[in-house]
Amino acid sequence: MTEDLDARARELDRAHVFHSWSAQAGLDLMPIAGGSGTTVWDHAGTRFLDFSSQLVNVNIGHQHPAVVAAIRDQAETLATIGPATANLTRGEAAVRILDKAPAGFSKVFFTNGGADAIENAIRMARLHTGRDTILSTYRSYHGNTGAAIVATGDWRRMPNQYARGHAHFFGPYLYRTEFWATSPEEESARALQHLERVIQSEGPSTIAAILLESIPGTAGILVPPPGYLAGVRALADRYDILLILDEVMAGFGRTGRWFAFDGHGVVPDLITFAKGVNSGYVPVGGVIISDPISATFDDRVFPGGLTYSGHPLAAASIVAALDAMQSEGIVDNARRVGAEAIGPGLAELAERHPLIGEVRGEGVFWALELVADRDTREPVGAPVIGRLKKELVSRGLIPFTADNRIHVVPPCVVTDDEVAQAMSIYHESLTSVEDDLF
Amino acid sequence: MTEDLDARARELDRAHVFHSWSAQAGLDLMPIAGGSGTTVWDHAGTRFLDFSSQLVNVNIGHQHPAVVAAIRDQAETLATIGPATANLTRGEAAVRILDKAPAGFSKVFFTNGGADAIENAIRMARLHTGRDTILSTYRSYHGNTGAAIVATGDWRRMPNQYARGHAHFFGPYLYRTEFWATSPEEESARALQHLERVIQSEGPSTIAAILLESIPGTAGILVPPPGYLAGVRALADRYDILLILDEVMAGFGRTGRWFAFDGHGVVPDLITFAKGVNSGYVPVGGVIISDPISATFDDRVFPGGLTYSGHPLAAASIVAALDAMQSEGIVDNARRVGAEAIGPGLAELAERHPLIGEVRGEGVFWALELVADRDTREPVGAPVIGRLKKELVSRGLIPFTADNRIHVVPPCVVTDDEVAQAMSIYHESLTSVEDDLF
Repeated sequence: MTEDLDARARELDRAHVFHSWSAQAGLDLMPIAGGSGTTVWDHAGTRFLDFSSQLVNVNIGHQHPAVVAAIRDQAETLATIGPATANLTRGEAAVRILDKAPAGFSKVFFTNGGADAIENAIRMARLHTGRDTILSTYRSYHGNTGAAIVATGDWRRMPNQYARGHAHFFGPYLYRTEFWATSPEEESARALQHLERVIQSEGPSTIAAILLESIPGTAGILVPPPGYLAGVRALADRYDILLILDEVMAGFGRTGRWFAFDGHGVVPDLITFAKGVNSGYVPVGGVIISDPISATFDDRVFPGGLTYSGHPLAAASIVAALDAMQSEGIVDNARRVGAEAIGPGLAELAERHPLIGEVRGEGVFWALELVADRDTREPVGAPVIGRLKKELVSRGLIPFTADNRIHVVPPCVVTDDEVAQAMSIYHESLTSVEDDLF
Repeated sequence: MTEDLDARARELDRAHVFHSWSAQAGLDLMPIAGGSGTTVWDHAGTRFLDFSSQLVNVNIGHQHPAVVAAIRDQAETLATIGPATANLTRGEAAVRILDKAPAGFSKVFFTNGGADAIENAIRMARLHTGRDTILSTYRSYHGNTGAAIVATGDWRRMPNQYARGHAHFFGPYLYRTEFWATSPEEESARALQHLERVIQSEGPSTIAAILLESIPGTAGILVPPPGYLAGVRALADRYDILLILDEVMAGFGRTGRWFAFDGHGVVPDLITFAKGVNSGYVPVGGVIISDPISATFDDRVFPGGLTYSGHPLAAASIVAALDAMQSEGIVDNARRVGAEAIGPGLAELAERHPLIGEVRGEGVFWALELVADRDTREPVGAPVIGRLKKELVSRGLIPFTADNRIHVVPPCVVTDDEVAQAMSIYHESLTSVEDDLF
């Protein structure tokens, strides 16, 4: 019967569900029926270690009882309410989020997810500055919306016709440096010089904001070298440009800090969030707004909005998730496990496996960059990653893969034991793939 | 104590929540603590008739027990899971949605809300046809996203750089006809001729799709005149252009039918939905995909996606909401109440109140167009609408207003008694405003 449910889930999925970022014909996806902490299982009870946190969002782990209870209670009280109300739970969620942000941030705009958080941060930056251009890096992902407001015909289109003015630059990435650098310090300094030249070339007076993932995530967990983020802030100040830090993937515990930019000596003007804020238990995202930008819209209409903005179920799950993460030391756990177990474990793997070109990361946010040749650093191709993925799943681990990389991104609640199990699985799977390759 | 909660909700809201489509300084929004069916109440227990359905989305009414139970049960089983899994509840939700759609639609792509449903329908249409232009009407609202994918730097930007190719035309709207028409039939025929000329002028071979709300909603509940939608379909076929019908606001019961286009003799190529599909109990939206478009992506990667796509809480709420709407005859109720109570009630109001220029609608989807002068049809200004809104709220009714209009849009479960109460409130409030005006 339980196996029938797995079969039924696969059958309905293949027949009726259209999937993201995929060709649809060959898909045969794994059914997941339940979970707890770092573990999930199918209907037949087969268990897997979730070292993907799904899409790097289940920071608090699966089925945290406090978050589940909060959703249940809020559903029984008031499941939904429109944004144009003063909702107490929504206000409490804003307080929890602002409590983690730097001084000088007093308001939160809630969205449905990360992409529309970015949409609204860009909208605020453009209207606040009166300029169009947004600079962001080639190695970045900021969501995939881009046309609905231009298709809209009514007045709400006019202040939003920003289908223009995006320019891209290179951020620091020492392993594949764009700047011929040989040390983190050199990479940082040269990347800053490059950014300054792009600013000058685009024209500072046309640039509304620099938009950066504090740590570019899907692009490869590219932890910025010392001084880079502070240097970007200094450039933004020098040229009177806003700085938007995208904390959708890196924020709320993933790095072992509340925000990835904490400790980098930088305060942005706008912060975008989603994923970790409530571990995706209910779809939500948002923008944390610094006071000068917020003040711009005191007497001027902000031309953006969403039916589900500040949804009470989402708000209740944020309150419960952030309170639990704080009281249970979940962010500290991510930091400690990263430093004591994952980092050393991956370093040991790198010593034993020629496939691994570089290990980088912190907290529960790590990448293994896989290469066909350590000298040339030639990335492995999709077949190697596909094969490795199968090996990992067959040994009971759900991996996160991107391009030529394995991202090691378990929930923040992961234990030393689970890390040890995972390291064995990575080792065996890498060995199996290398046996065929080399 | 309960009044303290209202005060606390207002205080946190003003201090920390940034609101959609508003200047922030003067906001003092109503706290809502709970609800049932067509009624909501604040923490002090003051009750209001919700004739807004919030943002025209709570079709099943507030706190429907079956939907609340489904959310609670799903939260306790598996609150969240990534899209790249075969989730049974998600599959069941797709089956329920497809069951309401015309023949020839086998797949659903789930999104977080209406805007990203439109985003992905546009993406599918452009990639399926290899063309750029999307035609939509001036009097329309299709969501407010428009930049995130252009800000994105990685490869996912490239197949999505569609920051171009939008053109707008006029749809039918007899009360303020663009075409000097004097009957619905004439308005329909002339609007179709206008659309054909726009297609010819833009060049049919450059047009991917015509995007239409089946009944433009926020633009004024502009029920299309006889033959218009079928005529658009015929033009799309003649010029080999796709037809996307946006059912975000009009779909899932609002008109007294599952889809607003039902009965109009038209089958679109893509259908977008959100709001009514689960009454917004959990943020969700999506695209219902016809088989030829779905087949385009069998062997070709679809370059779009979302972390929360096919979220299990949303899926569970869709299954419960659509099953309850069907078994409890909720869509039929919307149709009956519209025909027997709301329509006649509003017609009677129009006879008594010179402010009302036109009444139009069906089901639980009606607009009162307010005019300063019935002959010139000059719309009333914002102060009149603001004043009327206050009168309505002070008498215990939450209205939906847009431009110079009151939209009468209660949940589909509204009773004859509640409609009678509402008509009294509209009558008294209009009288009070007219006493000062005329």
